[in-house]
This record gives sequence, C-alpha cells and structure tokens, in this order.
Amino acid sequence: MSGARGRLFVVGLGPGERGYLTEDARTALETAQDLIGYAPYLARLPEREGQTRIGSDNRVELERAREALRRTAEGRRVALVSGGDPGVFAMAAAVFEAIETGDPAWRGLEVEVLPGVSAMFAAAARLGAPLGGDFCAISLSDNLKPWETIATRLECAARADFVIALYNPASRARPGRILDAFAILRRTLPQATLVVFAKSIGRAEEEIVIGELASADLSLVDMATLVIIGAKGTRLIEREGARPFVYTPRGVP
Amino acid sequence: MSGARGRLFVVGLGPGERGYLTEDARTALETAQDLIGYAPYLARLPEREGQTRIGSDNRVELERAREALRRTAEGRRVALVSGGDPGVFAMAAAVFEAIETGDPAWRGLEVEVLPGVSAMFAAAARLGAPLGGDFCAISLSDNLKPWETIATRLECAARADFVIALYNPASRARPGRILDAFAILRRTLPQATLVVFAKSIGRAEEEIVIGELASADLSLVDMATLVIIGAKGTRLIEREGARPFVYTPRGVP
Repeated sequence: MSGARGRLFVVGLGPGERGYLTEDARTALETAQDLIGYAPYLARLPEREGQTRIGSDNRVELERAREALRRTAEGRRVALVSGGDPGVFAMAAAVFEAIETGDPAWRGLEVEVLPGVSAMFAAAARLGAPLGGDFCAISLSDNLKPWETIATRLECAARADFVIALYNPASRARPGRILDAFAILRRTLPQATLVVFAKSIGRAEEEIVIGELASADLSLVDMATLVIIGAKGTRLIEREGARPFVYTPRGVP
Repeated sequence: MSGARGRLFVVGLGPGERGYLTEDARTALETAQDLIGYAPYLARLPEREGQTRIGSDNRVELERAREALRRTAEGRRVALVSGGDPGVFAMAAAVFEAIETGDPAWRGLEVEVLPGVSAMFAAAARLGAPLGGDFCAISLSDNLKPWETIATRLECAARADFVIALYNPASRARPGRILDAFAILRRTLPQATLVVFAKSIGRAEEEIVIGELASADLSLVDMATLVIIGAKGTRLIEREGARPFVYTPRGVP
C-alpha cells in the first residue's frame, strides 16, 4: 500500500448521452486517476491525460468492483463508472458485496457513492409524471434470484396498485422473461392498464411506445427497454400532434 | 398570448445544497425568465438580473403549477423548481393535474420535466447500497389518498420483501402516521429488519440513524426524514471508527 490515501467514487452517469450528469459526478470523473467501468460507458467520457482507463465487459460486475477496490487500497483515486444511478440495479451493490467478502482492509477504505438519474426517473420525465403516486422497481433478471421471488413481487406490486418499473426485462440468455411477467400481471391487473416501453432513454435512438396491458406487443421489448406498468389512476392527457402526456395523480379517490 | 413560444421546465434540484444538480437542470435555471417554486428552494439559487422569482408556500402545489402554466402560455420561458426529482412526490404530477383540469390550450404547451436525484437515492448513496435489490417508495401523506390505501401498500410491500422508502413520514397536522405505519410493519416483518432514518439529506445538519424495526425510536422521525426499511437480505458491513455500510445484495438466495 502506498502512503497516499486512496478514494473510491462510485459514479452514476445517468442514462444515455444527455445532460444528466451531476456536478459531484463530473468533479469525481475529472479528478480521478483511474476510470473503471463497462467499456461503452467509458467511451462516453472525454479522454484526459494521465488518467488510466480500464474498460470491461458488462457481465463481470463483481470482478470490476474488486479491481476498483484493489487500486483504491494502493492509494489511488478511482472512479468506478455506472450507468443511471449506481444504487439501482447497478454497480454500488456489487462494490459492497466485494467489500463484505474481500480483504478485511477494504472496510477501512473511503468509498463514496455519487447518485445519479436512474433510467426509471429519466423515462418518467420524458413521459410526464407516471410515477406521481407510490411505485416500485423490480429487476426481472433471474441470474441472482429465483423466478419465484420475482413472481411473488409482481403479484404483491399488482395488489398494492403500485406503478411498476421493470428493469432488465430481457437478456440474451432469457429473452422471454417479460412474457412470464406479463402473464402474471394480465391475470391480476385491469386489461386497460397503461403500459409504456421506454427504449434507449437519453440516446439518439430513444423510442417510447404507449399501450395497454392486454394488447401490448412484447416483441418490442429488448435489453435496452425500461417497462413501466401504470397504477389504476395512471392515465393519458391527449394532445394534438404530439405524444400524449402520461401521468399518475398524486392521490387516489 | 404573445408571439414568443413559451416553454416550461420542471426542474429537480436534488435534495439539500450538495452538488446534485444535473447539467440540463443548471442550463434551464440559468436561461429561464421566471423561476417559480417553494421559497426555500429558490433561496438556494443564485440571483440573476432580469429573472423574475415567484416564491410560495409549500402547500399550494397545484396553484404554483397553474401560475407556471399561465406564464408559459404568455410566451415566457419558465423554470418550476422542485426538490429532489420532480417526478417523485414532487411538482411534476401537480403540473399534469393542472394541465388535465385547466385551460385546454395548456395541452399544446411545451413542457419538459428535467429529472434529478431523489432523496431516496441520495440517502441510499450516503449509506452504501440499501436499494441494491427490488424496492418501493410510498408516501405516508394521507392528504390525497385514504389511509387504508397506504396500509394495504405497506402490507403488500412487506410481503414482497421489497426495500421500502417512506416519504412524508410526518407532518404538522399528522405527526403520528409513522407510528401507524410501523405498527403494520412490525406485525409483518422480522423484528431485526434494518431501519434507517435519513434526516436532512444533503444539508449541513444531515444525520443518519441506523436501527432495527422492533426498537427504532420513532420520536426521531420528523418532516425532513426519509425512512428506509430493509428487505430480508439488507445488512450492515461493520467498520472500525466509522458508520457501518448498509447494503442489500443484488440477489436473494
């Protein structure tokens, strides 16, 4: 370990290339000695002299977190880059898993998570205010939890009349999990429940599809889609020549 | 209506005075002709020559939204300022309620919601990664929805094993609603469930209290507190001479 005191920033970029970066996040990215992250996220950041970049594949989150912690323990100032908000289905949990199970000295490191705009909030902002009432966020990825847990959570969320944000609705290995999720929701929720597919939010190819639970075309859902299922109160405000606003009133009658 | 095309930005500042502001939000605040918002939020922004400021009380959200829409309809460039993320128990839903129920011409206005860092994500970042699994957000305010709805949502959230973020846990009119909420959660969840009171997040007087469901001292909860209730997997990483990290592993066994 060197004499310098290392510091690890876990930095949320927000989704896509839009101006979602916070001031704290920008400062951390500018002053870091090492930038570590999923290669396409690093590619969004300007090159800086003297800054080391360690890009990696998307599926090695825990290994990436360990690399960041090793460098921090060596006294370096490290920014571990995450899409969206690092605390929402992103890098922060992997960092603390790595600390819990790794070198006990890592518990003494300075680690600061810098929050960002999650895909869910960016998508909501583009639509209007679909999360205006109570809401929940569920990752459909069953790499790390059994499908039964996900199914129970979907059922409870429907019964609670939450607006539901679904992350990771499809993957290369399991393109069809959104079908299983909708089968559960279609059994429980009104068929006219509003459904939104928010694709590639914040990117040039951004696309928003608004439909209803019963008839929504699930073949449109891919890995870059965030799915929002409305609550009973969620509704459209129609507009001439423009996409309708989607919003959920703050109260329920 | 003037010849100029008005534009309304609904801008999230993030919580407190920290550097949570996004680049898009900063640009909107700098270029607006009118700044409208809860007076203490406006006070956080630098004065600019030629910019009109209309500060108001916290309890008149719908009236504030209408004032912003009226000025936008007159062709002005308006920033309606919100704490945290405007889409999360804040100003965005009030704006769309005002549009739905107001002058039909308002549907034709350009309205852009600029997302921000919600109190929930800022608090999570200060703690570690407590929202690392699936989670929900519930406002305990019963001004606009019946308590029975809130009670059902709490029960469903507990059954779902969500991490739960509770907004508006107390108010001047109803200081005791957190007692009712905890009574429900204490009937349903393990008594050792981790509980966090995140007070005045992002402000100088920020304070974080970590406890357990059964014994948490609810007299500490005030209007500026965000309450986080852990899931079954949520746990502490103890550290020497520092506050423990709080995190929820991404998966469940």
